[in-house]
Amino acid sequence: MKMLINVAETVVTDALRGMAAAHPELVVDVEQRVIVRRDAPVVGKVALVSGGGSGHEPLHGGFVGPGMLDGACPGEVFTSPVPDQVVRAAAAVDSGRGVLFVVKNYTGDVLNFRMAVELAQDEGIQVASVLVDDDVAVSDSTFTAGRRGTGATLFVEKIAGAAAEDGLPLERVEAVARRVVESSRSFGVALSACTTPAKGSPTFDLPPGELELGVGIHGEPGRERRPMMTSGEIADYALDVILEDLQPRLPVLVLVNGMGATPLLELYGFSAEVRRVLDEREVPVARTLVGNYVTSLDMAGCSVTLCQVDGEMLRWWDAPVATAGLRWGC
Amino acid sequence: MKMLINVAETVVTDALRGMAAAHPELVVDVEQRVIVRRDAPVVGKVALVSGGGSGHEPLHGGFVGPGMLDGACPGEVFTSPVPDQVVRAAAAVDSGRGVLFVVKNYTGDVLNFRMAVELAQDEGIQVASVLVDDDVAVSDSTFTAGRRGTGATLFVEKIAGAAAEDGLPLERVEAVARRVVESSRSFGVALSACTTPAKGSPTFDLPPGELELGVGIHGEPGRERRPMMTSGEIADYALDVILEDLQPRLPVLVLVNGMGATPLLELYGFSAEVRRVLDEREVPVARTLVGNYVTSLDMAGCSVTLCQVDGEMLRWWDAPVATAGLRWGC
Repeated sequence: MKMLINVAETVVTDALRGMAAAHPELVVDVEQRVIVRRDAPVVGKVALVSGGGSGHEPLHGGFVGPGMLDGACPGEVFTSPVPDQVVRAAAAVDSGRGVLFVVKNYTGDVLNFRMAVELAQDEGIQVASVLVDDDVAVSDSTFTAGRRGTGATLFVEKIAGAAAEDGLPLERVEAVARRVVESSRSFGVALSACTTPAKGSPTFDLPPGELELGVGIHGEPGRERRPMMTSGEIADYALDVILEDLQPRLPVLVLVNGMGATPLLELYGFSAEVRRVLDEREVPVARTLVGNYVTSLDMAGCSVTLCQVDGEMLRWWDAPVATAGLRWGC
Repeated sequence: MKMLINVAETVVTDALRGMAAAHPELVVDVEQRVIVRRDAPVVGKVALVSGGGSGHEPLHGGFVGPGMLDGACPGEVFTSPVPDQVVRAAAAVDSGRGVLFVVKNYTGDVLNFRMAVELAQDEGIQVASVLVDDDVAVSDSTFTAGRRGTGATLFVEKIAGAAAEDGLPLERVEAVARRVVESSRSFGVALSACTTPAKGSPTFDLPPGELELGVGIHGEPGRERRPMMTSGEIADYALDVILEDLQPRLPVLVLVNGMGATPLLELYGFSAEVRRVLDEREVPVARTLVGNYVTSLDMAGCSVTLCQVDGEMLRWWDAPVATAGLRWGC
């Protein structure tokens, strides 16, 4: 498998050097693998820190900036950051009003962020954390007890990030983040496996002519394999699963997310089918976002995430954000 | 080859339905394949219209909005839009101050836009057009006499778009666009071929372990094939070719552009190597943009574009833009 890299060992630090060069508005500590807003700590504001394995870009480093995360700590590819990284990020961004950790539900992340909470509290930092577990495809999976955390992470970081900018205290920002998690569901499909730099070959075998329904963002197995389906059939399947579980009573935010190698032309075509299904089911759509946001290296495929929102959540969704990966209103 | 589509015949219209659903700020005529700003025509402003084959998203439809294009007309995949589409877009966006066509240098686009200029003038629309031909890899190529138009299209549409927002008359907006073309050079590499929906198999053969240096955005052949190189070696090679031709005397804008299937993690790593080379050559960097902007469906690989800018061009680059694919400052 060919990759645009130097050697597998430096993939993450090379990318961080690139982020540092491209984004003077960020402080990138390449050695310690911590990315923070240049203006951190922001006085009077609760800070948000997230992190996780690399390979899902722009998540999380690409979501650091005004209106979203204050700091992020990338681990090795598909590997949790270590507790020291998380504590370092928390210390760099804490203004005294506390730090919320946004954690995707994978065993390594859960353990390391839990340890980071203790270490940060030992340093006198007030910390809360929220677990994102939006993937309805399977309960329990490779690397996960319970549901996996996937596309809803973007909604949590954006909406809770805006709530923090509004000056809410830690316990209320935490409550907003939990509300977003409870209001969100995701489902993903893979048309091809991804290849990690360290392994150099696909992480799983997907026969020609088949797709994996319910795949995770590390290529974890889903619900089933089927002969290739049309984008309309995939939208029907994915939204059946999501809507049965979510049963939305409010308008939804829609994220049509590319896994990495699927062209934007196809993602927009798929989003048309997603909208068709939501119209058929009479689910009102508040906003739609289409693109590569929570990726899985070079996997072909997509995921769809719905988040039902009240007026306050929608206002925080629409609030200004200025990050490398998501930007509007400023 | 698996794709996230319904059938090959509806790929472009399906994507346009998706754009219409996701972007209420655009008017998308799915039948006629024309995308325009909802507030068009903008009184007192020169309008910009571009278009070309689909498969390069977010180019061009994703660059329609305040600060960039007023309208875009997508053709079939890798196929020029027809003159009628272009004229329809021009008529929809012309405020009376005239329309600038931004045309990438491919034979079909050149012919059809030339015909569109005549037809639009017959309708009483004042029209100018600028040809983008920034790809230094080869002179003459499949589909092209002279150099191909690639990544610089983004710089032209952004900078001339900002100049138009500033109220400049048509001949001056045209001159700005030409200045951007003259100041820009690109070079691309492919790690894999792309697959068009209609063909369903890769557009060319690239043996395992080799890369194509100087590839075009439709998989046109480049300068040579070599055994796979590191991202550092690719940056050295690409910038050698670009800098020899451009010989910049001013700071440069840098676009590190993904062809479609290369992970953002790798693109940022490559951009670190691009910066290293520019530092070594003592070329000052004004701004860097990293991501998938001028793509080639699911091709793996990247291109690098430099555009040397004076203070005025840099101010237009930094000016607010609000499109689906590029957005800042508003």
